Amino acid sequence: MATKTPGIPKGTRDFSAEIIAKRNYIFDTIKKTYQTFGYQPIETPAFENLSTLTGKYGEEGDKLLFKILNSGNFLKKVTDNELSEKNTNKLAPLVAEKGLRYDLTVPFARYVVQHQNDITFPFKRYQIQPVWRADRPQKGRYREFYQCDADIIGSNSLINEFEIVQMIDQVFSNLNLDVTIKINNRKLLAGIAEHIGYPEKLVDITVAIDKLDKIGLEKVYEELKSRGIDEDAIKVLEPILNLTGTFDEKMQCLEMFVGETEIGTEGIDEMQTLFNYIKEFKFKSKIELDLTLARGLNYYTGAIFEVTSNETSIGSVCGGGRYDDLTGIFGLKDVSGVGISFGADRIYDVLENTNKFPETRKSAVKVMFVNFGEKEELYCLKALETLRKNNINAEIYPDNAKMKKQMKYANNKSIPFVILAGENEISDNKFTLKNMNDGTQDTIDINAIVKKLNL
Amino acid sequence: MATKTPGIPKGTRDFSAEIIAKRNYIFDTIKKTYQTFGYQPIETPAFENLSTLTGKYGEEGDKLLFKILNSGNFLKKVTDNELSEKNTNKLAPLVAEKGLRYDLTVPFARYVVQHQNDITFPFKRYQIQPVWRADRPQKGRYREFYQCDADIIGSNSLINEFEIVQMIDQVFSNLNLDVTIKINNRKLLAGIAEHIGYPEKLVDITVAIDKLDKIGLEKVYEELKSRGIDEDAIKVLEPILNLTGTFDEKMQCLEMFVGETEIGTEGIDEMQTLFNYIKEFKFKSKIELDLTLARGLNYYTGAIFEVTSNETSIGSVCGGGRYDDLTGIFGLKDVSGVGISFGADRIYDVLENTNKFPETRKSAVKVMFVNFGEKEELYCLKALETLRKNNINAEIYPDNAKMKKQMKYANNKSIPFVILAGENEISDNKFTLKNMNDGTQDTIDINAIVKKLNL
Repeated sequence: MATKTPGIPKGTRDFSAEIIAKRNYIFDTIKKTYQTFGYQPIETPAFENLSTLTGKYGEEGDKLLFKILNSGNFLKKVTDNELSEKNTNKLAPLVAEKGLRYDLTVPFARYVVQHQNDITFPFKRYQIQPVWRADRPQKGRYREFYQCDADIIGSNSLINEFEIVQMIDQVFSNLNLDVTIKINNRKLLAGIAEHIGYPEKLVDITVAIDKLDKIGLEKVYEELKSRGIDEDAIKVLEPILNLTGTFDEKMQCLEMFVGETEIGTEGIDEMQTLFNYIKEFKFKSKIELDLTLARGLNYYTGAIFEVTSNETSIGSVCGGGRYDDLTGIFGLKDVSGVGISFGADRIYDVLENTNKFPETRKSAVKVMFVNFGEKEELYCLKALETLRKNNINAEIYPDNAKMKKQMKYANNKSIPFVILAGENEISDNKFTLKNMNDGTQDTIDINAIVKKLNL
Repeated sequence: MATKTPGIPKGTRDFSAEIIAKRNYIFDTIKKTYQTFGYQPIETPAFENLSTLTGKYGEEGDKLLFKILNSGNFLKKVTDNELSEKNTNKLAPLVAEKGLRYDLTVPFARYVVQHQNDITFPFKRYQIQPVWRADRPQKGRYREFYQCDADIIGSNSLINEFEIVQMIDQVFSNLNLDVTIKINNRKLLAGIAEHIGYPEKLVDITVAIDKLDKIGLEKVYEELKSRGIDEDAIKVLEPILNLTGTFDEKMQCLEMFVGETEIGTEGIDEMQTLFNYIKEFKFKSKIELDLTLARGLNYYTGAIFEVTSNETSIGSVCGGGRYDDLTGIFGLKDVSGVGISFGADRIYDVLENTNKFPETRKSAVKVMFVNFGEKEELYCLKALETLRKNNINAEIYPDNAKMKKQMKYANNKSIPFVILAGENEISDNKFTLKNMNDGTQDTIDINAIVKKLNL
């Protein structure tokens, strides 16, 4: 019987050593920055109780949750009536009580509430773990992907916002990527909504403005109209959507615009404080106040951040903001926090597109011993032990295969050095070290090899 | 409405920074050893197609697979008849096409077959990822846990077995743990089965012998009898089960015992070759030939390994062996391999029980700036930037809270140093650095602080 070549579920990926090295370069850069800013790691289980996840991501999000079938008799809780109705929306929670993590924010909120008595607040945590979404897979969108989050919870200080801007700048400058950090504040948006006479339409206005980048000004106007904003109000909004100039010029205009609303004034004060910090420091990234930045997520209440690449048009590579009541969903009220999330997969694509991954060793193996057969093996194994004790990644081709085959193996794995030890070398207690790049070789003793390979 | 404190599914765990640091100590030690021996990482998706997983772990294993409910209308493929039967075993594959990884071995076999044209054989890979089993949770047994596997596939050489013994020894000696590496060979067991006249009962005999450690000699005899081995044959088996002495003594006895069978002779030759290597090297671990070691897994065909702690009785902390046809299940025949798996959770428990975790910094944060208020903040933020650029993990308490509260925060997080910068320090361009362990303090400039904290 012919067996079909096995595959993996759509939207998922296998990673080879070479890709893992590149991905770790991104993760390690982010992790390192989080750590220098005093953030510490937590990890949560891959699956949570569905009661923890459901209702936190909107109706659309609920549909994208991967649910885990209950073990054993999964129909135990289903009545014959319910079963015959075949209403899968109603049946799902009866046959599946657990779901795969959809993001790191809700598990973090759950973690904080569950462990609140063991946690020292303000709590600074980072978390780099995969999440799963039953989204339609497409280029750059996967069903399993990593998120890299950092949040500080339990502090209202705007120092936190400032340090988040610093962290974003640090990560992208360490990755040698040129980005723009866009900053806005939900309170400014609320002030604007109030100013144009639609305070209750904040969400509609936000959603429409959020699309400006993608659909353009005209379509945003249409959308605003269709959401019940009248033309006069839209006209008042126009200068805001077209706002240009320096930070100070924008702020001046804003003050005239939303200065009379209480919430708008708060937003202006927060923005001014944040930019007062920013002005005192040097950044590699471009930093700008962008009033059209809204970010879809409803739980943001203060500052919002979004980072885009200046080198490729790939959408947002990092985003975040302040939320005043994230843990409220689990019963812990009045804890304000602010956080960000780096999109590792998108950052990977930008680094790939701009050819900015550092020269990684394609192979982590530094040297391969050619296998000449039983007589020579022991001599090589002794030398291998010495190299490995000196932290040199080394291997012996395990079988006494043809030289050509062994050299091809070393080539395919991009192993930079090969050691040959035949009768002559053994009697002299030496090894012939061959440089696979330039073909030069040297017959030297083991100490000289350690020195050379440890360079 | 009162909200119930949220929890996590049974058998899963949250990990705090402190526990993560300890776990990483284990993972990093294993990873480092794998790398020096020329193994390279791969990663596979958390879920596989159920067709990849089902039937690979026996009937019991199939029951322990976590299955993922199909998205959307999951009853699409179920007829009314099938539904009304309520046979969940039959229904499960119709409503769930994916399942969570149960181990790393089957995904590895799938990976090798799927990517066979891109892989250079012999293929040495390691993989450290979580797996999930719907097992009944109990002390030391979780539904989500990490496996740490290394395998080499596509080579028959016994050098591989030897290097695996070296790797095991290296990992445990780096962890400062005292262990015994038990080695056996399935071919010896086959020779024994043949010798006592039950070649077809190899699996029954193996299963019974495997329990010797747990249930004792008498019960093993009973089990053998119940599996259809007659008393005469069991008597012949007795000296094998009671085999003691040095390696050479055991081998001598074995030769008399299974020397006349072909498969037994192969087993003796392989064992002798392996021990010839071993004798030439120094090991920290105890290494012994243990004929009662059988290991339940049916796919092993040659050498088998198991490692137990000499310090606590916690069962096996590492195990593995050679398999001649792992990838055959996916259509790639005649590829022999050998591998091991470290049980990170058990190793964690041994290190905890024996108090052998190295002194880890409870907190990765080295220093905290006390927050005296707006006027001083900028001065501190500038200093923070310098410290972080020098790779010192540092933070400022974000709010201008009472000194007592701020110091309590530093204490709870075990931050070893605190910096105070008030009016006097600022006018002198200095900082007061307080050692939280001995209470001493010094007023020095930023360069001196960098030097001191980088020690």
